[in-house]
Amino acid sequence: MKTTISVFLSAWLFLGGSAMAADKSPLPADESTPDALGWMQGFPPPADKTIRFSDPDYFAFPKLRWTVCHFRELMPTAAVRNGNDGASELIVDLDAGLDAVEFTPLDGDAPMTWREAFDANYTDGILVLHKGRIVYERYDGCLNKQTLHGAMSVTKSLTGLMAEVLVAEGKLDESAPVSDVIPELEQSAFGDATVRQVLDMTTALDYSEDYSDPKAEVWTYAAAGSPLPKPAGFEGPRSYFEYLQTVKKKSEHGEAFGYKTVNADAAGWLVAKTTGTSVADYLSSRIWTKIGASREAFYTVDSIGTPFAGGGFNATLRDLARFGQLVLNEGQWNGEQVIPAKAIDRIREGGSKEAFAKAGYGLLEGWSYRGMWWVSHDGHGSFSARGVHGQTVWINPAASMVIVRFASNPVAGNAANDPTSLPAYRAVADYLMSRE
Amino acid sequence: MKTTISVFLSAWLFLGGSAMAADKSPLPADESTPDALGWMQGFPPPADKTIRFSDPDYFAFPKLRWTVCHFRELMPTAAVRNGNDGASELIVDLDAGLDAVEFTPLDGDAPMTWREAFDANYTDGILVLHKGRIVYERYDGCLNKQTLHGAMSVTKSLTGLMAEVLVAEGKLDESAPVSDVIPELEQSAFGDATVRQVLDMTTALDYSEDYSDPKAEVWTYAAAGSPLPKPAGFEGPRSYFEYLQTVKKKSEHGEAFGYKTVNADAAGWLVAKTTGTSVADYLSSRIWTKIGASREAFYTVDSIGTPFAGGGFNATLRDLARFGQLVLNEGQWNGEQVIPAKAIDRIREGGSKEAFAKAGYGLLEGWSYRGMWWVSHDGHGSFSARGVHGQTVWINPAASMVIVRFASNPVAGNAANDPTSLPAYRAVADYLMSRE
Repeated sequence: MKTTISVFLSAWLFLGGSAMAADKSPLPADESTPDALGWMQGFPPPADKTIRFSDPDYFAFPKLRWTVCHFRELMPTAAVRNGNDGASELIVDLDAGLDAVEFTPLDGDAPMTWREAFDANYTDGILVLHKGRIVYERYDGCLNKQTLHGAMSVTKSLTGLMAEVLVAEGKLDESAPVSDVIPELEQSAFGDATVRQVLDMTTALDYSEDYSDPKAEVWTYAAAGSPLPKPAGFEGPRSYFEYLQTVKKKSEHGEAFGYKTVNADAAGWLVAKTTGTSVADYLSSRIWTKIGASREAFYTVDSIGTPFAGGGFNATLRDLARFGQLVLNEGQWNGEQVIPAKAIDRIREGGSKEAFAKAGYGLLEGWSYRGMWWVSHDGHGSFSARGVHGQTVWINPAASMVIVRFASNPVAGNAANDPTSLPAYRAVADYLMSRE
Repeated sequence: MKTTISVFLSAWLFLGGSAMAADKSPLPADESTPDALGWMQGFPPPADKTIRFSDPDYFAFPKLRWTVCHFRELMPTAAVRNGNDGASELIVDLDAGLDAVEFTPLDGDAPMTWREAFDANYTDGILVLHKGRIVYERYDGCLNKQTLHGAMSVTKSLTGLMAEVLVAEGKLDESAPVSDVIPELEQSAFGDATVRQVLDMTTALDYSEDYSDPKAEVWTYAAAGSPLPKPAGFEGPRSYFEYLQTVKKKSEHGEAFGYKTVNADAAGWLVAKTTGTSVADYLSSRIWTKIGASREAFYTVDSIGTPFAGGGFNATLRDLARFGQLVLNEGQWNGEQVIPAKAIDRIREGGSKEAFAKAGYGLLEGWSYRGMWWVSHDGHGSFSARGVHGQTVWINPAASMVIVRFASNPVAGNAANDPTSLPAYRAVADYLMSRE
């Protein structure tokens, strides 16, 4: 029983964005790739180089660096079908000058180059689009052009965007209480929250994602969302839907930003109830079949096949770049308005800076959160999707630039990679703008 | 623990081809579709309409009829990537006359029409290609043009074909003992069997797939292949590779055909050792990326990600038809020799009829088994891949015809659907030949 429970837990450590205790001096990037460590090579792989879903550390560094590319082989998933017309062309127009672009990390005073940041952030793949052309593309670790990688909390921004599309199209009322759309949530904390409060994560939830606290609600959530059979005698919630119904309210909605993954799953449920299809199928029908994605994407699912709208999305880096370009283009793809520009405008305008400030993100002063996107208010209109080990969709409208990144930073939390990422994105934008 | 074990077992009941005890008068086809029974509809589905991997009956009729299209959402899988150029064109030239084609079932004397056979066999989808054009295509139950279905033991024929490709290309020696390729199998029954004996299933194995016998070896095999975490204290084999090493020999190899799924997994291991890639990746590189498959296919996997080469393949019906056409075309696709004709010739020539007869398949008198395909010696040169609930790739070279079928017959065993299938295939072939 104990083993089974620990499997539930280890299986879902990637739920959120909190920083976990990490090795003080982890192996550097080039010494911790799956190839360097020999994970899962051969038929069969050696016993001490085998990674299983039941390993308590399957999602801890350094196994993490293999696992982020292999979720599908470890757990059940739901497909996000792409179209039948093949991959859309991405013009490659590499700029060899990018590697030397310099910036100063937020926490240092010595300059660092774009190339150095690649390893510093344990990057598995990064791609820069400028005016729709690939100007930079580099892979390492478990990733290549054709393989998929876990997007972690970048998933939330996909969920949020789908909900914003429904709001923009008048199918989902952002001012309605959630219980109007999901009667099952009436008695929960979400019942009297508005759709907008869920999308902006200003709900007031008695819910902790502090992984260092064994009593934190996230553990019950993790067990509920685990696809594995529950141990005999298990009486807790058995799915995301069941868990969300148990979340209790704490103080008043609308006052403070609180980054809690359950909001994204509630948003996914809003999308499902509004459209009659899961977020996986809706993402497929609205976006993944429209942008010439090169491969099917997927979501990890719970024991009843519900896509994990808070963190379960996986895709290729190039397909994530296509998605980013669609967002930069205000929903247009090849001249077709695939999703309404208004949905993206609502995100770009940002949320309440005051509510955001209450969450105390020191490195993100002046930012806000809207529709499950992080809005920087940086003067370039940059906004982004962010995942726990460095996954990113960074959109800089002023520079007509999209940066997408998959990474497997040993530290679970963007505070670890923001110092060597945020100023780097700005430096690359400035560089690209200066070429014109 | 008991629950966990039962999950292992129920999870892998689809391993083989033995007939299981079934409801004497199951619901008819039109009353047992997932839509008719309301499985997994809504967010969330009602509790009594929910299907989980941990349900002991998740793969028993009638849940079976939903599950065959949803393996991916229940268990871990490995992708078989398709190409980036989009789906290849399949010319649709439907012949409305086919539905009325009559035949006499093997076990009856009243004629039945092709249309009637569709329901009699609990068909989820069937497609007939004549000279490469779709002359018939019908879906029901959980399947449509875009969704995937479990191929069950049709998988074995894909595995066998890959091995035959390697034999034809001189990369795998059919006369070599298996232990030459897989040293780990030296002490097992496979050790002194030849590659050819494995591919033709004339190995002599002390291994029973009699599901009615609780001591049958198939149960240990099922537990080994289950992707689920093993219960505390579990000391048995934990993967297909580990299980295969435990199989004992019984009498002499080469004398009798014995349809045992473990041979297919041994063949999959031969492919992996020879190519350095899994059967999933090899199938992708050699075939799935070459024939314009419309979607990624996949295999279910064990706890270390090994594709289930004996029964885990899933694909769309149209992609299975593309595959069948490639085989009919002796390995050519759009003028390119994708795989060697010799590999298919070796299958078409058949195996030992004498060895086959010893297995006592009353309905398949005069047949043989070669390279994990069933060879009918019917005068049309027909040969086929067969799955436990009626899955079929039926190739009739004389009629330039390919029939592919996905089904979810309540009875696990082709004896249940052969009487209303084999003469139907012949009648359709005769009809198509008579049109010319």
